[in-house]
This record gives sequence, structure tokens and C-alpha cells, in this order.
Amino acid sequence: MDENKQAHSDAPVDAPALERRDFLKTAGLLGVGGVAGAAHGKFGLAPVMPAQAQAAAPNPAPPRMAETPWWPSKWGANDEAGASNHITPEKVLEAVRSIRDGRIYKLGRDYEAAMPLFGTRAFALRIPGAPTGGPFGENKLVYNDEFLATEIGQVGTQFDGLGHIGIQMGRDGDKSEMRFYNGVTGAEMLDANGLKKNGVEKIKPLFTRGHLVDIQAVRGRMLDAGEEISLADVRAALQRQNMQESDIRPGDAIFFHTGWGSLWMKNNDRYNSGEPGIGLEVARWVIERDLCLTGADTWAVEVVPNPDKNLAFVVHAELQTKHGIHNHENLVFDQLLADRKYQFVYIFAPTPIKGATGSSGCPIAVT
Amino acid sequence: MDENKQAHSDAPVDAPALERRDFLKTAGLLGVGGVAGAAHGKFGLAPVMPAQAQAAAPNPAPPRMAETPWWPSKWGANDEAGASNHITPEKVLEAVRSIRDGRIYKLGRDYEAAMPLFGTRAFALRIPGAPTGGPFGENKLVYNDEFLATEIGQVGTQFDGLGHIGIQMGRDGDKSEMRFYNGVTGAEMLDANGLKKNGVEKIKPLFTRGHLVDIQAVRGRMLDAGEEISLADVRAALQRQNMQESDIRPGDAIFFHTGWGSLWMKNNDRYNSGEPGIGLEVARWVIERDLCLTGADTWAVEVVPNPDKNLAFVVHAELQTKHGIHNHENLVFDQLLADRKYQFVYIFAPTPIKGATGSSGCPIAVT
Amino acid sequence: MDENKQAHSDAPVDAPALERRDFLKTAGLLGVGGVAGAAHGKFGLAPVMPAQAQAAAPNPAPPRMAETPWWPSKWGANDEAGASNHITPEKVLEAVRSIRDGRIYKLGRDYEAAMPLFGTRAFALRIPGAPTGGPFGENKLVYNDEFLATEIGQVGTQFDGLGHIGIQMGRDGDKSEMRFYNGVTGAEMLDANGLKKNGVEKIKPLFTRGHLVDIQAVRGRMLDAGEEISLADVRAALQRQNMQESDIRPGDAIFFHTGWGSLWMKNNDRYNSGEPGIGLEVARWVIERDLCLTGADTWAVEVVPNPDKNLAFVVHAELQTKHGIHNHENLVFDQLLADRKYQFVYIFAPTPIKGATGSSGCPIAVT
Amino acid sequence: MDENKQAHSDAPVDAPALERRDFLKTAGLLGVGGVAGAAHGKFGLAPVMPAQAQAAAPNPAPPRMAETPWWPSKWGANDEAGASNHITPEKVLEAVRSIRDGRIYKLGRDYEAAMPLFGTRAFALRIPGAPTGGPFGENKLVYNDEFLATEIGQVGTQFDGLGHIGIQMGRDGDKSEMRFYNGVTGAEMLDANGLKKNGVEKIKPLFTRGHLVDIQAVRGRMLDAGEEISLADVRAALQRQNMQESDIRPGDAIFFHTGWGSLWMKNNDRYNSGEPGIGLEVARWVIERDLCLTGADTWAVEVVPNPDKNLAFVVHAELQTKHGIHNHENLVFDQLLADRKYQFVYIFAPTPIKGATGSSGCPIAVT
Repeated sequence: MDENKQAHSDAPVDAPALERRDFLKTAGLLGVGGVAGAAHGKFGLAPVMPAQAQAAAPNPAPPRMAETPWWPSKWGANDEAGASNHITPEKVLEAVRSIRDGRIYKLGRDYEAAMPLFGTRAFALRIPGAPTGGPFGENKLVYNDEFLATEIGQVGTQFDGLGHIGIQMGRDGDKSEMRFYNGVTGAEMLDANGLKKNGVEKIKPLFTRGHLVDIQAVRGRMLDAGEEISLADVRAALQRQNMQESDIRPGDAIFFHTGWGSLWMKNNDRYNSGEPGIGLEVARWVIERDLCLTGADTWAVEVVPNPDKNLAFVVHAELQTKHGIHNHENLVFDQLLADRKYQFVYIFAPTPIKGATGSSGCPIAVT
Repeated sequence: MDENKQAHSDAPVDAPALERRDFLKTAGLLGVGGVAGAAHGKFGLAPVMPAQAQAAAPNPAPPRMAETPWWPSKWGANDEAGASNHITPEKVLEAVRSIRDGRIYKLGRDYEAAMPLFGTRAFALRIPGAPTGGPFGENKLVYNDEFLATEIGQVGTQFDGLGHIGIQMGRDGDKSEMRFYNGVTGAEMLDANGLKKNGVEKIKPLFTRGHLVDIQAVRGRMLDAGEEISLADVRAALQRQNMQESDIRPGDAIFFHTGWGSLWMKNNDRYNSGEPGIGLEVARWVIERDLCLTGADTWAVEVVPNPDKNLAFVVHAELQTKHGIHNHENLVFDQLLADRKYQFVYIFAPTPIKGATGSSGCPIAVT
Repeated sequence: MDENKQAHSDAPVDAPALERRDFLKTAGLLGVGGVAGAAHGKFGLAPVMPAQAQAAAPNPAPPRMAETPWWPSKWGANDEAGASNHITPEKVLEAVRSIRDGRIYKLGRDYEAAMPLFGTRAFALRIPGAPTGGPFGENKLVYNDEFLATEIGQVGTQFDGLGHIGIQMGRDGDKSEMRFYNGVTGAEMLDANGLKKNGVEKIKPLFTRGHLVDIQAVRGRMLDAGEEISLADVRAALQRQNMQESDIRPGDAIFFHTGWGSLWMKNNDRYNSGEPGIGLEVARWVIERDLCLTGADTWAVEVVPNPDKNLAFVVHAELQTKHGIHNHENLVFDQLLADRKYQFVYIFAPTPIKGATGSSGCPIAVT
Repeated sequence: MDENKQAHSDAPVDAPALERRDFLKTAGLLGVGGVAGAAHGKFGLAPVMPAQAQAAAPNPAPPRMAETPWWPSKWGANDEAGASNHITPEKVLEAVRSIRDGRIYKLGRDYEAAMPLFGTRAFALRIPGAPTGGPFGENKLVYNDEFLATEIGQVGTQFDGLGHIGIQMGRDGDKSEMRFYNGVTGAEMLDANGLKKNGVEKIKPLFTRGHLVDIQAVRGRMLDAGEEISLADVRAALQRQNMQESDIRPGDAIFFHTGWGSLWMKNNDRYNSGEPGIGLEVARWVIERDLCLTGADTWAVEVVPNPDKNLAFVVHAELQTKHGIHNHENLVFDQLLADRKYQFVYIFAPTPIKGATGSSGCPIAVT
């Protein structure tokens, strides 16, 4: 038995795991000490390698920054809609009143096979038949469908649902101690055919005021991978744009422009290798201001790798898992910036695929 | 050689074709005389069976109702956006001004494997890994994706793109004589990996006034399959709802409630077997009023089978292919009707999957 | 916290879980007392409902019949090939010597969308483009591909790999206590992109003597769902077929004909509702005789529901998980039986999809 | 109208087409003059660019080398099994008699996402749920499935079916003049949900003598892309291996080792950029010898680009479309060569996916 166990843990890590590790390496998540670092970080915790994390000997240490249960949610112990609960009729009317010129800007990118994809995600679109059916009738009608196979809610411009991100409490690999938004466990939520709780179909349509901060303009250049947007950056951008911080109100959405999106389909390898973004400082400001959603022209909105090498996508956990605040990735702000439109109405109704972890679609800004 | 050809045309039709034929049969498209009918219709054309339509001996007759080329489009010979061109800033502001109470209604249904699917379309959602990745970092983050394989833009609540429907001109099976919106040929448009023209990503976000007519209320019952909504029905509904026909303006959207949607996931077989809907009479009224979009609580908006048994989905061709007028299927109006909200702002930005024939998503009504 | 937990466990079970439960119900797995039964069975264990099994309150009882660790395998602690290790050159030559007339029989069925599928599995085949590419060159070559989305190794005629079936030891939902062939844990084996151990690509090509027992002929009728094939049945069939039990040697394959396969695509609902098959008695005989593989004209080879209502697919676990003995489902023996060919060479090389749980393909019998 | 047509043909070629063209370029198919060449070739035909080939103005010239109808097949006008008809009981027994030592060699590669894929083909494997189901019963059984989305029969080690390759006769894009094996037209064969004729399920299981020629050994180096294997090469290899050409008999299979396979997953870009292989000279020898199948350690078996730049995959058309001779790609011969086993029994039963264009699986060699 012991001998057998030994054999398993000594076995070389196979290709699928390697692929992910390779990705994390290129994404800057595997530095000197792996995802969790050999240097043990400023909190002095033991390092956790991803291979170990999924292997036979689980890490007995509790996850950092998850000491206090974050549930029940302020929207109730059964809530699955998170910060979309902000979108009340009053909030909608407030947004409507801010519309001035009736222009619509698409904030989303086209979905296509050549777009940068995280890790091993795939995107394959096919037109069956061409035409798919017909001709039918004396009017000789023909029709075309498209067949798509993909990680639909987690490719391209994507809205993270509340079942996307969780924290492994307790023992690694124990679904009954894996916690998601509102404390829902993996055991309660996970199913091979779709999430049983926190599915993206539970999110209410978003229709709220959006505020765009141009961090690239503040810095005078595109930010680099691993470069964190500070609260000072945000405030400098607001000032530069003649905006008041106090005008960013509960239930509003905040968007960060870094310039990183200029790499999209121009240099996918670099685009995927990491990204600039917000860290815990700005995340806490977002929480304090009680916002509804964050968004950016990057694939994760948050800084990757995190300056604290022991942390992986910690802003996701802080905003989404603990506070139900939504996140919209791979957005485009170019035309808004060209027109100096920093405030607008952000409209997005997630595609209600039952049990999905996120949503594709085309968010729009109306000015 | 001749002998060989004979052999082919005598061969029994195989299963995939049978499946489609079976569907068409249940959908009422194959009556006494097949899709095109044995009675030869009022135009005296020869009948066309679907199996023949795809077989060696093509029908030499030109398609009915396609005598006159419908291109170039009034939006220009290169246009691929169709009636979404109606959505100008002025049109958006007109819609915004109509918002009174800030309530949002979801017009779309949840997407799930149990929903009724047309023909052989499929919908399979899977959660890889559960969790898909992690735990990563000392914060022990885990994440979930979803993998979806489906006719994405043609399942559930669906918006038809301009590459979905076409007409086979010339010889059956000849892509250079197969015509779509703006006269684009199959040869120009079709590709195994996505449409080269008329892809749904070309449609502009829709933000316009919507008008809902409750035909079920006028009739005092759910309409039945094959039952055509007349213009008189539409006018009676407007009158009953205290609405003026003249208030339906160019670029607006019109929605038809038939009650057929009550069968959704209650009786999928009946739901798929046909449907009530508009015919050519109302379609021509929609064209005259220069509307932007039609929608209904049915899977095709138009009456199936058509009262003229020789015609197959002819309203699709009339509105979409010839006039670029969009179509939104499998909608839900129950809450709007309960609240007697017959006018609202219809907002929908198609998911811009490059080269797709349609779009999933969640259209909303704002009142 | 407690309140919150309460809320979760009180929440209604959602649709995906219901679908599976519905399936299990039609498959006879959910009788009076659910999968594990209200009667508590002869071992007096508490009942376990599938919904509970995946819910917040895991069943603390150890799994029945898994008391003794079954690892390491007799083929070594690192083995991932199981009983395919029987296929040595000597074994191949023994099989070759038994070939008499050079006839090949296909034991596999065609794969198509209309075949019966277990639970929520899907099968969607599409021809992209039609043609997919071309014409290319002056020779005007065109080509077609097929795009397939499916549970490839677990649909239609299917060979179970060693990562397909496991036993939840320890706490429900704890991957580090979920055990597969050779004691490999879920934590070691499971990955979103394919199994890291026990993938079907590790199985050696099978080329061995096969023995077919016609249980339908012994009983004089098609066996019914839930009807267990006894060892006496097997022996009666051997006698009827003039075969010696002693001629079934280590490494050979055994096949059971029940007649259930006659329902294939004739009555899929009944076919899926359960099946006749072997139980633990015959399974233990298979283990004693040290065979390589079991097969049948049913979707699981074993009796479903098990006469002991508390057990679910226990023969799978006994043969595959504990002894590495392979299993081939949804086979066809009609022509072999018509020709009274009860002994043949069974040849099957699993499709080596890295990290897959099973394999499609076409096993053959050579006589 | 004319103006409109002009607009279409002037429109820039969009991305999907570009992707394919890019691929063909890297594959050497687009040289100075495109697929069909600017030099007009030795037959003086006009050049055909792929974009034109699919565009509005079809090439009116008949395809080169398709002057004479190649149908009906020598196996009858209705035959869909092609050269697999060679596999008679006598042929099987002949093969069986050649087995000496009972060793089995896998000729197929593992299928995985990292393998080189032609053009835009995709391969995505996911494990739903992990586990996919359970625990069920008091025995706490769990199970795993895999979900696969891919061009199943045209990725990795692949066997070409008779519906894979055809020739566009008549007008480009006209399915009624697109011809496949046995003269079947595109109109008769193509369907969105699977081929209606010439599906791979019609092929009989292959069990025949295989002959391997090591061209790399003859040349003393790996052959390069675009390097054609001559008949003299084949004869030199036979001589070097002490084999008689006359021993290669009707219905046998011939395999070519070029060394190109050493690039597999080592240098996918180069692997995909072209390949060494046979040309029309050896193809005609294969036809004369009345063989059953060709195979190689390359992705097409034939030389790419063809030395005659106007021809695209012409060996495919010559062998498969016109003569029904099968083709097996991306094979591995390393162990056979190491053991100097140049003759063996080749066994492969295509996975009978109804209407598929090819087959994955694991061909084996038995010595």
C-alpha cells in the first residue's frame, strides 16, 4: 500500500497537467517557487505547487485570505444574483437620465478561432452542410446553421458568473469544503451537465451607469504584464477626465483601460502571458464603493501575475466569490476613448445558459 | 454510366434524410404532396419533394416568389447589417424617451438540453473537471468553465442573422445560384468555418421601440399550429390594447403573442409539430411599415405549415432574405402581458460570433 | 452559518440532477427506496439517495464491498493496462491457431444520433461546408470532414477504460478518497482535459480467444430487464453449444447474448430502462477463470437494476475497478449465432485518445 | 445588378478564407501561382486561385485528369466499400498463415490536443464533472465520461473514407457535378448530418498482408517536404529489405516510411508545412498491383506540395476517388523498423460512424 502510494506520487506529471503548468508559467504564475512561491511570501505560508495541489498529498494549510466565512451574502442566504441585485427600477431610471446623444458603442469583440484563448480552452465553429438544409418548397428555401464547440462563457469577451470562481477550503480535492459565492459548496453546486447553483442564468440584466478610467493615458504608455493599477492611478485618471470620485455610486460599473487590448490577435502569446490590472487595493475600493461590476481590456481585469507571487487570481476571489461583484473581460474601449466618452450606460444581459459559469455576448455602452 | 446513374437515384433515402423528413412531416410540411404539394398549388408548379430537392435530378423550375432580384439592398450593395441600420442615435433617443418606470423584462428563455430543438439540432453542456482548474496559489483558487456543443445561434431564444435564410435560384445544389440577403451567393458566402458574408457580427445593436400584440387575447384562446395571424387580428389587438397603428414607426419592432409558448418544455412534440404565426399578409404590412424586427413566442414567428402547402418558411425569405428585416424566435411575454405593458424599449445586441448565422442571448424589454 | 447551510439543503433539486434521477428511475435504479433502497438491504446500511450523495451532507458510511483495498494490481503497482496484459505473443499465437475459415464478423454497431444513449449523453455529427474544402488545384479536388461532439468512449458500442469506474471511499465528494483501478485516487487521476492516469490509451490491443454463450437460447426467450444471468445459465449454454468450461482459459474473453440488443433503435426507451445481465455470481466466476474481458448485447453487460436494489453497477466495480477486467458493451452477435460460431478470435485495439475513459471502434470476431 | 456583382467580387477576402489560404501557403500549395500555378502547367490550363474557386466567377475549365468517368467501380455501380472488398476469407487466411511470432505493434499514435492538425481542424477533450456521475448505491460507485469535439475521422492517425475526397466536375460550386467514389455526386452524398453515401461505415474490416518500405533508409536521411518517393525508391527499399516485388499481391497494403513522423509534436509547424510522399508514379503502381491500402508516417501519404504545382492532393483523387483504394495517415513504424519487421498482418476495422468521412482508431501490425 505505502509502496503503491509512493509509486503514484513519484510518477511523472503527464501532458494535460503540463500544458496547464506551461500556461501558468508563461502567464507568470510559476516563478521561482511555483504558483505559491518557494520564498513563502510575506505571510510565511508554505508553498503550493499546482501539481501538488491536485496530487495525492493535499496541502493541509487553510487558504490565505479566506479566514472568515463570507456568507451569507448581503442579498440573503439563498441569493444567486449577486451585485446584479443593484439593478432596481430606480437605478435604471438614473442610468436612462444620463443618456444624452443616443450613440451606441459595442464594448465586445468578435468571437473567432484566432482570438487568444486562456490555457487549453478551444473555439471551433462549423457551418454544417452549407447549406444546412433545403431547398424546401416551391419557394426553394435553404437555410444555414452554425455548430459551435467551445468553453462558451469563458472565451473572448466574457462575463464571469458566480459559479466560475471559488476557494478550496479544508482538504484539497474535497468538494464539500470547496466554497463559492454565498458559501455554496462544490458538492452542492457542481454537476457534469451544468452548475446546480450560481448558474449565470440567475444574474439579472445589467443596465447601469458605467465609468471608464484611462490608465494608459495617465501612465503615458500601455501598462505591462504584472503591473498593478493603483488607487492613485484611478484617482489620477478621474482627475484627468474631469470626473468626481463621488459620482461613482453604488451599483455603478467601473472599467479600466490599460492598452493591453492592443495586443489582441496581434500578439496573442504576449497577450496571454500575463496582463496589467487591478490588485487588492483597487478591489477593496470597488467593494467599499459598492459597485456592481468591473471590466477591462484584458483577459482577467486583475494584474497577472500578482505582485505577491503566492496569490493566484485573488482579485477574482475577493470581488466575485466573496462579494458577488461581477467582472467583464476582453472589452474594447477604443471608440469611447476617441470620443472622450468616459461615462455611459452599460447594458448587458447575460445569455441565460442554465448552469453556465459565464456568458458571451455583446455588452454595449449608450451615451 | 446510365445504369449507374439509375442505381443512384433508385437507392433508398438514408437515415439522416429520413430524420429531417420525419421532422418536416410532424411539422406539417409534408402533407399529401410533400413540401411542395401534390396539388401543384395556385401557381401550377410541379411538386418538389425534399429528397428530390437534394438528389441527382434537380428541379429546373425557378423558385416561386423570387422572380425579381431583391438586391441591391436599400442600404447599399455592400450592406450586411440589414434593418439594424434603422438604429440611429435619433432612433435610440426616441426609444429612451419612452422609458417611464425603469423596469426590465427578460424576453429570452433559459437555454438547456430539455428545450425543444428544431430537426436534428443538439445542445450539450458539460462542466469540465468540476472544478475545471485549481486549487492555485496559497489562496487556493479554483475555477469552473463550461463546454458547450450546439447549433448556438439556432437553438432556444434565437435571433436570425442574414446568412441564415436564402433561396435556391438556378439549378438545385448550385451554390453560385443560391442567393441570400443583398444577392450574396452561396459561393461567396458559405465556408466550412463560418460565413464569409452576412455573418451575424455585422448586425448593429438593436435599441428601439417594441410593440406587442396579444393575438391570443383577441382570439380568446391559444392559436393552433397552421393558424395564420391576419392583419385584422393585428389591428383588433391594437384596438383592444388602446394602441394606434400609426404609432408603429419605421425601425420599430413588432412582437406577436400566440400562447404557443405555453407548450415550451411542457409538450415539446406539439411545440415542434408546427405553430401559429404570421403569413405573407402581415409580412407585407411589416415591410410597408418599414419595421426593424419581428418576434414571437414561437420557434419561427411565421405560420407552420403555411396555409399554402407548397411554400416552406416563405415569410422568413420575404422578410429576412429580401428585406433584411430581423427575426427573434422563442420569446416570452408573460410578465409583460400580466403587467399590460404592450410598448417598451427592445434591446438586443447579437453575440458577434464571426460568421455565425444567428445569435443566442437575452433580449430585454425596458418600460 | 447554520441557517445558511439549512437554506442550501432545503433548496429544490434542480433540473440537471432531476434528469439524471429520471433516467435512473426509468433504469430501475430508483425503486421504493432510491438507489440504495429504503429496505436498507441485507447488510443493514442506511439508504443513500443520489441527490444526497452529491449534496452537502455526505454519507459517512464506507461503501459496501470495498472493505479491502484492491491494490496494488497483480500486474504491478504502476500498471494501467489491466487485463490487457494477458495478451502476450503466446496468447496471440494460441488465438491465431484457432482461426479456421477466415471469416470476419463485425461485433460493433454503427454510431448514429438515433441510437439509445445513457442518461444525458449526446451525439452530434455534422459535415462542415459540404464540401469542407476546395475545389483546389487544376484537378479541382474537394474534400469533406466530419465534426463530432459526443461522449465518444461512452456511446454506442463502447469499451470501458480503467478510468471509467471508481468507488467513493471516505467522505462523499472527496477526490483524495475516490479510488479507481490500482488504487489510483481521483485527485491523482482526474483532470478537466483528460485522465492523467488509467487513460484508455494505456490498454494493449486485444487479440484473444472469444467465447459466446447464448443465454437467450437457453431460456427460450429474450431475457428481461433486471433478470440476472446465473452461472447455471452459462453452464447450460456451454453444454447446449457443445463447449467445455475448461476450454475457457486465462486471458480469454466471454460474451453473453441476451436478446436485449433486438430493442436497439426499435425501442430505445425500453432498451435504456434497464437490462438483463450478469451479477456478482458470474462476475466472480470471470475473476476466478482470470478472463480478460466481458461483453454483451446490452449497454452495461451487468444486470440493471441489480436484484439487490442497494447496489449500483456493482459488477462494473468488481470486474473493472478491482480486477482490471475489461468490458465491451452494445455488441451484436446475430450473424455469429446464425452461423453457430460460438468461438472466434476477438480483436479490438482501443482508440488511444489520451486520457479518455473508454473507446468507440469496431471490434471484430475472426473464425 | 452588375454593379452589385462587382461589389461582391471586389470585396476583400475575409478571415476564414485567409486562414485556409495561409495554411495552404505554408503547406507549399500556394507558390508563385497559387494552387493551380501562374505558369499554367504543362497542360496549359488557366490558373485557379482558391479564393476564385469559391467565388462568384467559377472556373469553366474541366478538372485536369478527370476526363474519363471513373465509374462504375469494378465492384459494381452500387459499391461503397471500395478496395476493402479485397478482404475475402481466402485473403484473411493467407494473412493468418503469415503470422509467425504473435507480436502486436501499434501503428497508431495517441490522440491529444497537442498533435499537429491540418488547417483549421480542432480537437478538444473534456472530462465532464470529474467524476461525471455518482456516488451511486451503497457501493458508492462513481463514473467518468469524456466529451470530445473534433473532426474525428480527419485528425491524428486517420483512415480516409470514400466520401472524403472528390472532384469538382462541371461548374465550381455545383453539387450535382461534384463527383466522388463510384461517380456518386455531391447532391446525392452530402448532408449536414453525415454523408448519405460512401460513409466510412460501409468499409469492411481490413485484415491483410502489409509491406513496409523504408525510404528513409534508402535515402540515408529523412525525406523533405515536397520530395517525391519514386518507384525506383520503392524497388531499392524492397531490395535492401530482401523482399520481392512479386510478393506484393492484390489486396495487400503498402506502407511508406519517410522519417517525417519524427517531427510529430516536436515541430508541428514543419510537420504541417508539407511532406514527402508518393506521387502519381507510385500511385499508378499501387493501382496496377491492385492493392488495398496505402499508408505512411505523414499526414497525407502523398507528396505535398506536388512537384507539379498545379495539382492539389492529386494522389488522393487518383487512388481513393477513382479506384477506391484506402489510405491511412499519421502512422508510426519505429518499432517495426527497429525489429526489422517489414512484413506483417495489417488489421484495422474503421469505427463505423454513420456518414463519416474517415476513421480514427488504432491500426495494428501482427507478425
